[in-house]
Amino acid sequence: MKKLINDPRNVVRESLLGLAVAHQDIIRVHYDPHYVVRADAVVGGKVGVVSGGGSGHEPMHTGFVGRGMLDAACPGEVFTSPTPDQIEMATRAVDGGAGVLHIVKNYTGDVLNFEMAAELCAAGGIEVQAVVINDDVAVQDSLYTAGRRGVGTTVLAERICGAAAERGYDLQQVADICRQVNANGRSMGMALTSCTVPAAGKPTFSIGDDEMELGIGIHGEPGRERAPLKTAREITEIMAEVVIADLPFISGDRVIAMVNGMGGTPLLELYIIYNELARICQRQGLNIVRQLVGNYSTSLEMAGCSITLLKVDDGMVALWDDPLHTPALRWGI
Amino acid sequence: MKKLINDPRNVVRESLLGLAVAHQDIIRVHYDPHYVVRADAVVGGKVGVVSGGGSGHEPMHTGFVGRGMLDAACPGEVFTSPTPDQIEMATRAVDGGAGVLHIVKNYTGDVLNFEMAAELCAAGGIEVQAVVINDDVAVQDSLYTAGRRGVGTTVLAERICGAAAERGYDLQQVADICRQVNANGRSMGMALTSCTVPAAGKPTFSIGDDEMELGIGIHGEPGRERAPLKTAREITEIMAEVVIADLPFISGDRVIAMVNGMGGTPLLELYIIYNELARICQRQGLNIVRQLVGNYSTSLEMAGCSITLLKVDDGMVALWDDPLHTPALRWGI
Repeated sequence: MKKLINDPRNVVRESLLGLAVAHQDIIRVHYDPHYVVRADAVVGGKVGVVSGGGSGHEPMHTGFVGRGMLDAACPGEVFTSPTPDQIEMATRAVDGGAGVLHIVKNYTGDVLNFEMAAELCAAGGIEVQAVVINDDVAVQDSLYTAGRRGVGTTVLAERICGAAAERGYDLQQVADICRQVNANGRSMGMALTSCTVPAAGKPTFSIGDDEMELGIGIHGEPGRERAPLKTAREITEIMAEVVIADLPFISGDRVIAMVNGMGGTPLLELYIIYNELARICQRQGLNIVRQLVGNYSTSLEMAGCSITLLKVDDGMVALWDDPLHTPALRWGI
Repeated sequence: MKKLINDPRNVVRESLLGLAVAHQDIIRVHYDPHYVVRADAVVGGKVGVVSGGGSGHEPMHTGFVGRGMLDAACPGEVFTSPTPDQIEMATRAVDGGAGVLHIVKNYTGDVLNFEMAAELCAAGGIEVQAVVINDDVAVQDSLYTAGRRGVGTTVLAERICGAAAERGYDLQQVADICRQVNANGRSMGMALTSCTVPAAGKPTFSIGDDEMELGIGIHGEPGRERAPLKTAREITEIMAEVVIADLPFISGDRVIAMVNGMGGTPLLELYIIYNELARICQRQGLNIVRQLVGNYSTSLEMAGCSITLLKVDDGMVALWDDPLHTPALRWGI
């Protein structure tokens, strides 16, 4: 295992220490249990937006805390769900009296622990609504999931809901927007290489020099198919076809498109994938109105990518463009 | 070779096609020869700021074209200098009558070709000044360089000079600021793995499972030492000590700090390195006033990192904070 770490047991804590000192103008980090909150929390009267999940997917979620996106993020150990007390404390820390939205990726452990935290918060008088993101079209059930997994659409949901909360929308409105984003977003990923969880010390899976895993999960869990390596064009066609057919996205739709790197794929290649995706969208009559190309929801150092399409209306695009200031995404501020 | 590409011969062109369609609000791409210019070029009366170099270091330089940074970037083939005619055409395309600054990383091919382009431009009546960045403290001469190599400080110079040009500073002033940034910036890098140039199809160098290359160049060229793999703390101490002693940076100095990923190292690890660097700076009395943590000057999918420290004054910090809108870096807009 070749990693820039000190001790496999301390990677999450030490990375959070670095995040905290780098971005002290935006965020504060609390330890034991770990959670990251906006430096200006609590924002009184505003709906709180909280997410979380296993670490190893950075910048998701800790890099998305700040004005216009998340109020708090709960990072678990690498590829491990955050604990109920961790989520409860983060929720309490950002409750400004208007309730809190939990944005939860659909993994069994995450869903259970967020549910438990929500009950604890409700008992303490905090109104919580939870929306489970399950946008991955690759597989119906998986190693860690009943139903579809939550992947790239989570990034877009956190941004759009964060903007809605910032505008002063109430909890029901913010939760409704989140459900709408989840309903209109679809993703699929693939990998060329495995990642190595620091505590495990060896690759999560093995894959041949001429193979790829189509429909990979963000923890390296199996996807649809182990297939011979294909060109960027063929890979993008395969993923886009499944994504587009699933919603379905139809000619005339306006979309936000994301080409997301899994952590170990250079930007040079991600833009090649984006070029293919843009060509496919044009052919299908889909109008890409906003885009993200880069590493947003990663799997440690895995080489590979995912694509996400989100059908949007004017309201969502306007929310997307609102001022945003987080460690990983920033505009208008 | 496992890469998300179509044809090793077309990676630069196809990646530029993706960049162009993704960021059509910010940039325009011209092909044969390739160069990227601001969408709003020419900005009349403004000094043009142009850089370039081999591709494979993305987002540097093409991702840094836009308001407040570069007016144009000239991407060569992967790890190959741009040609004189490419640089000349980019320079002509952004000359607003106030002259053009060439920011050149110190590699023999780059320096020669930028010099030749500058002569061609001068013959055409365009005033050009060139500043060569040579901030890499790792080695004196290298495989591709007489003198020190140009690395991370290039990113900071492009930003600060771009802001100065945007404010309307004249060519002499912008060039002087660039020389000042180069004089005050120092970097050093290291690698855990090699990268693979697409056209070569095999790793640039081989390295053992328990080894690292200290002082690596951004093309995988050898550094100071092949050494046993150490902890993030030890690695950061080694690099920071050389960087700090070289200027030297002294107690009370204000610095912009960059922890740069080589392309294949996850953000989780880069923040661990930043935590160590921040601790060292605090111990030495260096005050980090601004920072970048992420992939800015990469070597394809190489795993590893570099650190850069730039001593700054109030004027440089103010320029740093000016509005910026490029594909890779954005704030205030």
